[in-house]
Amino acid sequence: MALRHTLDFLLYDWLKVEALNQRQRFADHSRETFDAVLDTCERIAREKFAPFNRTIDDQEPQFDGERVILPQATHNAHAAYAASGMLGAAQDYDMGGMQLPYVVESAANAFFACASVSIGGGMLTVGNANLLMAYGSERQKQVFARNEFSGRWTGTMCLSEPQAGSSLGDISTRATADGEDFASDPLGPRYRLKGHKMWISSGDHELSENIVHLVLAKIPCPDGNLLAGVKGISLFVVPKHRVDAQGQLTGQRNDVALAGLNHKCGWRGTVNTLLNFGEGKYPDASGQAGAIGYLVGQAGEGLRCMFHMMNEARIGVGMAATMLGLAGYHASLEYAKTRPQGRLIAGQGKDAGAPQVRIIEHADVKRMLLAQKAYGEGALALALYCARLVDEQRTADATTADEARLLLEVLTPIAKSWPSEWCLEANSLAIQVLGGYGYTRDYPLEQYWRDNRLNMIHEGTHGIQAQDLLGRKVRMQDGQGMRLLGQRVHASVTRALQLAHQDHHLGEHAQDLRDAFEQVARATHLAWTNHEPAQALANAVPYLQAFGHMVLAWTWLEVELASLKDGSANLGRRTAAAFFYRYELPKIGAWLKVVAQCDMTCADMPEEAF
Amino acid sequence: MALRHTLDFLLYDWLKVEALNQRQRFADHSRETFDAVLDTCERIAREKFAPFNRTIDDQEPQFDGERVILPQATHNAHAAYAASGMLGAAQDYDMGGMQLPYVVESAANAFFACASVSIGGGMLTVGNANLLMAYGSERQKQVFARNEFSGRWTGTMCLSEPQAGSSLGDISTRATADGEDFASDPLGPRYRLKGHKMWISSGDHELSENIVHLVLAKIPCPDGNLLAGVKGISLFVVPKHRVDAQGQLTGQRNDVALAGLNHKCGWRGTVNTLLNFGEGKYPDASGQAGAIGYLVGQAGEGLRCMFHMMNEARIGVGMAATMLGLAGYHASLEYAKTRPQGRLIAGQGKDAGAPQVRIIEHADVKRMLLAQKAYGEGALALALYCARLVDEQRTADATTADEARLLLEVLTPIAKSWPSEWCLEANSLAIQVLGGYGYTRDYPLEQYWRDNRLNMIHEGTHGIQAQDLLGRKVRMQDGQGMRLLGQRVHASVTRALQLAHQDHHLGEHAQDLRDAFEQVARATHLAWTNHEPAQALANAVPYLQAFGHMVLAWTWLEVELASLKDGSANLGRRTAAAFFYRYELPKIGAWLKVVAQCDMTCADMPEEAF
Repeated sequence: MALRHTLDFLLYDWLKVEALNQRQRFADHSRETFDAVLDTCERIAREKFAPFNRTIDDQEPQFDGERVILPQATHNAHAAYAASGMLGAAQDYDMGGMQLPYVVESAANAFFACASVSIGGGMLTVGNANLLMAYGSERQKQVFARNEFSGRWTGTMCLSEPQAGSSLGDISTRATADGEDFASDPLGPRYRLKGHKMWISSGDHELSENIVHLVLAKIPCPDGNLLAGVKGISLFVVPKHRVDAQGQLTGQRNDVALAGLNHKCGWRGTVNTLLNFGEGKYPDASGQAGAIGYLVGQAGEGLRCMFHMMNEARIGVGMAATMLGLAGYHASLEYAKTRPQGRLIAGQGKDAGAPQVRIIEHADVKRMLLAQKAYGEGALALALYCARLVDEQRTADATTADEARLLLEVLTPIAKSWPSEWCLEANSLAIQVLGGYGYTRDYPLEQYWRDNRLNMIHEGTHGIQAQDLLGRKVRMQDGQGMRLLGQRVHASVTRALQLAHQDHHLGEHAQDLRDAFEQVARATHLAWTNHEPAQALANAVPYLQAFGHMVLAWTWLEVELASLKDGSANLGRRTAAAFFYRYELPKIGAWLKVVAQCDMTCADMPEEAF
Repeated sequence: MALRHTLDFLLYDWLKVEALNQRQRFADHSRETFDAVLDTCERIAREKFAPFNRTIDDQEPQFDGERVILPQATHNAHAAYAASGMLGAAQDYDMGGMQLPYVVESAANAFFACASVSIGGGMLTVGNANLLMAYGSERQKQVFARNEFSGRWTGTMCLSEPQAGSSLGDISTRATADGEDFASDPLGPRYRLKGHKMWISSGDHELSENIVHLVLAKIPCPDGNLLAGVKGISLFVVPKHRVDAQGQLTGQRNDVALAGLNHKCGWRGTVNTLLNFGEGKYPDASGQAGAIGYLVGQAGEGLRCMFHMMNEARIGVGMAATMLGLAGYHASLEYAKTRPQGRLIAGQGKDAGAPQVRIIEHADVKRMLLAQKAYGEGALALALYCARLVDEQRTADATTADEARLLLEVLTPIAKSWPSEWCLEANSLAIQVLGGYGYTRDYPLEQYWRDNRLNMIHEGTHGIQAQDLLGRKVRMQDGQGMRLLGQRVHASVTRALQLAHQDHHLGEHAQDLRDAFEQVARATHLAWTNHEPAQALANAVPYLQAFGHMVLAWTWLEVELASLKDGSANLGRRTAAAFFYRYELPKIGAWLKVVAQCDMTCADMPEEAF
């Protein structure tokens, strides 16, 4: 499979992932164990996910008033995924895990996103359990996290509310202490939650014995009011079915009710819900309403806990977008290799009597395929690079780990936003390669495109990523993250210049990248010089776009440097790099112009003039 | 309604459409008669189309083995449209028409595309009948065209075949003379057609008494072979139900059978079909298979006839894309004005205790709205400008008419492709303004976006438009069309420079436009200097994109020049122009770079390296 070859190249030839087994945590691992994980995931994805991707789009989740009904294929896929051990793969041996590096876990999960992004793997469950591992009590880890890693239960993240999407400080779900003895519950300080949570993926279903909701809510002040802003937010674990301190179901349903399903444009294999917490649909034995939840970590630290996992969740979204992009690339490439249509332009015209050629022979079809390759494989390289940084942060020496953390802060908004935008464009190009056929539901392209449109929205919209990047990440620690990125970029540039004799493109790309980084750095500086935040951030999204293209150019130069040998795969990567430098990187000029000038055309538009 | 105000401004203040009534053909018309047409269409679209746009997306056409079943709403909408008289509005009085200018007809039809693009108006029926008016015999006009204009029958265009989409020269539908007396049929030389036609919109339904298919087919050479290429193509009129020379149904079904419905990503209100001609499902009384068709125009002239109408069809597609873009703009604008979320950045931070603001107050939301306005209203201006040129071509003096024809040749690929690409982008931005809600089917945005994705494909893909522009249109008549466009652009530039004291942006925009035109002209020259067509056209699509942005910049300068007075609508248009010049026009540099260099990165990519 083309994807496996690409992953193998990126993991072993480029990122030298095998070297990780020199660290104590990964000492039992080797290329053989990594390959075994990749083999297993590739096989399950091929057998249990890919054949049903259209099924789960056609048979949307239904609510019969009591239960959410999903296609049998979804049950089978979930069961196979849980049985694979991937849910707990990265955990310690004593939690039942296999201490797999995060970068390998990410690569292995990529097969599922490629096969059927919305059947999905267990990203939310794992993220939920990881959060409990980081901030939960020992009992919470054993009762909740362990049962999630084993596949017995699934997990959700309940952040948004109908009136508070991107603005979490405005959530109004309340958590009040439950009884006099609330503080002595073995599962953690016990609260009653009341409120509505919107856009909750996997919020209700029958795929698992129980659902573990992680819920952001506010504990009222003594005067009964909620603290404004994010400071008042706490984190609670709220099971769908009540459990005892040993993790056994008590037979009582918790007061969490499905209020409705969201009917989406795509990504229809995943149940997406509006949940009512504590409205009294499922009162306790004494007839009292309120969803029972247990505080995780410290009160008021809820958002900080949640953000601990945000980088990984965002890389995960970027990876999902990437795999949709690559799925479309592979499908349209296959079509282009077999579909005859038209003739080549030869000399001054075409010979109508000649047989038709396959469309892959047309320059414009090649352009659309090469663009998809450049977007998709570039995004995959960046996602794995970031995943590798997660491993550095966790297992390298203190200095390296801290650098990895800082670099990850700067790169995460790009790893999330860039594939969301450009692998969506890749899917549009894939449709275009097929023409009318691509627009029909007989081919998978239109679904990839619909599914991918979600990724610019969830886990922080483009606008949120842009404000995070320009408003916070490039300025944090006095610009240290940006300087660090600059050092890495310049190290790649230097290496490329040294090897410029081996490939005639390398020197040109190195210089273009150096210029691009300079342009981004200068625009960053100009945006913040003598400007209020409202002015500096007025063009944060064009900044994000330019920054992303610069980062991807760097990624492609890195990949190119690992592809200097002969062979068609290496030639393909070097050509994709050339495409990126010639067709894409020059776009940053237009984006950075408005940033550098703090152009206020949009910000100053009066409402009545729209 | 915002759309009506925009149309009024463009028609009357900018394009001076009232002046058309000084021509004999339009002498009975005035602003009052134009307004009456616009009023009627606006009302029918509001009452019979808009409320059912989601219905027709949910209730896709079904085939029960005999008939195609459409929602009742589609029947009602079609009936109301036919009753409005719009099908024949542009025709002579003696054909039952009202001699309406094409530009007013286009503007009036825009309301239907905005309300529900895939219920649609009668674009295909009108296009079909217009073609018969241009090339048909007197009898064909009276029997077929007249019944189409009256709304009694509907029409289709049957060009593509499953194995021949963009490459019409490869069609294999055969037309053989039907009997010894074939040449003496009152309806025209009579043939039997056999073959398959793909992507036929409105190919079968019960909306009208009969369906008039215009079919491209090849008459075999004496040796039984089909002539290769487009030269062998002839045009035939093939009714679904046989008719006599007076246009009465004979009661016989013609041998045209529905082979299948295409299930599309969007545009689901329109039946899209695969039709089998002459396979014997509906043999004639003697049991013989073969669809009866009547030759239109001269044998071998089929494609030339079809292309006579191509400019209008392509402007029509651009208009459809435009109206989807504006529909999304209006819906997301309304949402942004009412949805509270987040707070403004003030000074060095945000005050979490302050009430939330409506999202239209955020700079990035304004950017997404202003971009939609710039794309949608700019595209509408261009579409109406082109429609105005159609009127010039038809009713102006010979010199003016010839200039209009030539300019239209150059502008049509842009009028078709630019809105297809950028109003799709507008729809994506509209989704983004709404965030998660925009991705649900509870709001109309995701449907606009899905519907709009078709427009880069049908009536000639982006790739086809690009080859037409760079390969033919800018070079035809020794570059005369391009020179003519240059003269118009420079006239606008000169006027803007003269008025530069009235608005501080005008001078800047004039200079930017002059530079942009120069850049495009230089790239055109470089692409064709010392290069074979295969090289010159290798980057035809980036060329098309750059050319399009330059044309839209010109359009916006023109609109700006008509918006110099006070008032918020004028301010809005001037700001949209400023947006286009600052955020969009600078993009052409990156596109033209590869054109000017004849970059062969894509074209030279070996197949095995993908």
